[in-house]
Amino acid sequence: MEHFADRLVGAIRRRGNPVLVGLDPRLDSLPPSVRGEVERESDPDAVAAAYWAFCREVIDVVAPLVPAVKPQMAFFEQWGPPGMQALAQVIAYAHQHDLLVIVDGKRNDIGTTAAGYASGYLGCGTSSVWGGDALTVSPYLGADSVEPFVATACERGGGVFVLVKTSNPGGGLFQDLMCGALPLYRHVAAFVEQLAERTKGSAGYGAVGAVAGATYPEQLAELRQAMPHSWFLVPGFGTQGAAARDVRSAFHDDGLGAIVNNSRGIIFAHARPEYRDRFGATQWQRAVEQATVAMIDQLRADTPAGQLG
Amino acid sequence: MEHFADRLVGAIRRRGNPVLVGLDPRLDSLPPSVRGEVERESDPDAVAAAYWAFCREVIDVVAPLVPAVKPQMAFFEQWGPPGMQALAQVIAYAHQHDLLVIVDGKRNDIGTTAAGYASGYLGCGTSSVWGGDALTVSPYLGADSVEPFVATACERGGGVFVLVKTSNPGGGLFQDLMCGALPLYRHVAAFVEQLAERTKGSAGYGAVGAVAGATYPEQLAELRQAMPHSWFLVPGFGTQGAAARDVRSAFHDDGLGAIVNNSRGIIFAHARPEYRDRFGATQWQRAVEQATVAMIDQLRADTPAGQLG
Repeated sequence: MEHFADRLVGAIRRRGNPVLVGLDPRLDSLPPSVRGEVERESDPDAVAAAYWAFCREVIDVVAPLVPAVKPQMAFFEQWGPPGMQALAQVIAYAHQHDLLVIVDGKRNDIGTTAAGYASGYLGCGTSSVWGGDALTVSPYLGADSVEPFVATACERGGGVFVLVKTSNPGGGLFQDLMCGALPLYRHVAAFVEQLAERTKGSAGYGAVGAVAGATYPEQLAELRQAMPHSWFLVPGFGTQGAAARDVRSAFHDDGLGAIVNNSRGIIFAHARPEYRDRFGATQWQRAVEQATVAMIDQLRADTPAGQLG
Repeated sequence: MEHFADRLVGAIRRRGNPVLVGLDPRLDSLPPSVRGEVERESDPDAVAAAYWAFCREVIDVVAPLVPAVKPQMAFFEQWGPPGMQALAQVIAYAHQHDLLVIVDGKRNDIGTTAAGYASGYLGCGTSSVWGGDALTVSPYLGADSVEPFVATACERGGGVFVLVKTSNPGGGLFQDLMCGALPLYRHVAAFVEQLAERTKGSAGYGAVGAVAGATYPEQLAELRQAMPHSWFLVPGFGTQGAAARDVRSAFHDDGLGAIVNNSRGIIFAHARPEYRDRFGATQWQRAVEQATVAMIDQLRADTPAGQLG
């Protein structure tokens, strides 16, 4: 299997944009036509079936437009084994539609246990049970907890995105603590960059990259400088408040180096004021399409990703 | 539902010991009679069925002896949806046998997503889909990522164990970084202790506790001093190298305040030199029983937990 970062670069060049659509199904936000009679008190099978139907229809719309999707495990796990079954179907369906799949699980554990997660999640198609192209990973447990993910990723053409600077308002509590001359997230960044350089493919990016939030544009610029070989997964665009200009510094000058996630702003676009009146809940897929196209246009206009199209 | 820490204290007093049995099924370590014809290349359904059978038999042995079990999610997740189904069965079976269940998932995410994990995992019986009594949680994403777990735990009589000082050799890479006068893990410890004090039950312990590894006994003593209201989940005993004397300082003088995990040293005791010859693989459940009793005896002899029996 080809190197993950090279596959990512290929997919981005083919679609001409670095938009990552986050698949975060939430029962209360589903369009009424998909939700049907499913209530919070419904059995998990019914909710899982609605999530699967919803994600399938989202994928139908976005697959021709974007290079990758990012299912958020929490929303599937929340509904127990039926939710997990729906997640497996979503991952397989996305692959069938030529999308890369970054599984957002923020997993980690000590060495031999981390190897279990890595083995289960990393490796698209049949090379792993879940079939993810990449997985998000938490750094708190240190180097020996991240290495098993790196080893499996390198074997199977998979990718690892380590949390460096997260997009949430409270992320700084520990991430911004000064450890010597640098905040904690810069120490994590240095560790990730080492792994990226060690695992780099022909496009110059490692199999290991970083999660770096769009809601902290200055830190994003600083990290881009400090981490030349690390691909950035950038959350925080859209509903979390960041705009295209905020993610500009995540890219290298050639428009590569970052993939920008938007979850609710795309998948629940039918509820956004600018689409609600135009399409309403019945044409929710048109709202998904328009929101995706709008985000692509914004990134093309305001970031170096404009050179990809 | 009664406060988690009060339920934990009650269960520990009833059994007279603070042993936590880690359910970490690994295919290559299963006793041959359980593994049968299941190979690495077998389909996940076959592996999951073997894990379920194995954990059920372990629970049959340990339920009369110890207060709680800790299934490690990675080993179940590794086998996809069938593995998750087996995990759900294991959690339910443990509850039927009057065991508390601490789900070891080391989960976390940003606020609204963390709420999804919390809702799915926390709350035994039917109050959550998975039915865990408690969940392990990673701190890197900060306060607003931990609060949803705390809120749900308080609502449902659940518990949260936040990673503070992990047992693995490389855990110090970030955890031991000096941030001002204290290492990072002490900053996390102070945050956890605040939450513990805020959520304390009638026994004086919070619904929020800490994961603090037995492999760092000096730090464990220091943390016990700094975190009077925090219950400790202590990994690292047995196969990871720590002995009863190493966990002594995790307890308060009355024998409460810590629960000590042992996974492989108990569930795969049939492979340990001291049991292999006595019981062999056919009597593997007797080895599980003897290893559990031996650990109980060691904690009673060498730690304040001796006062519980």
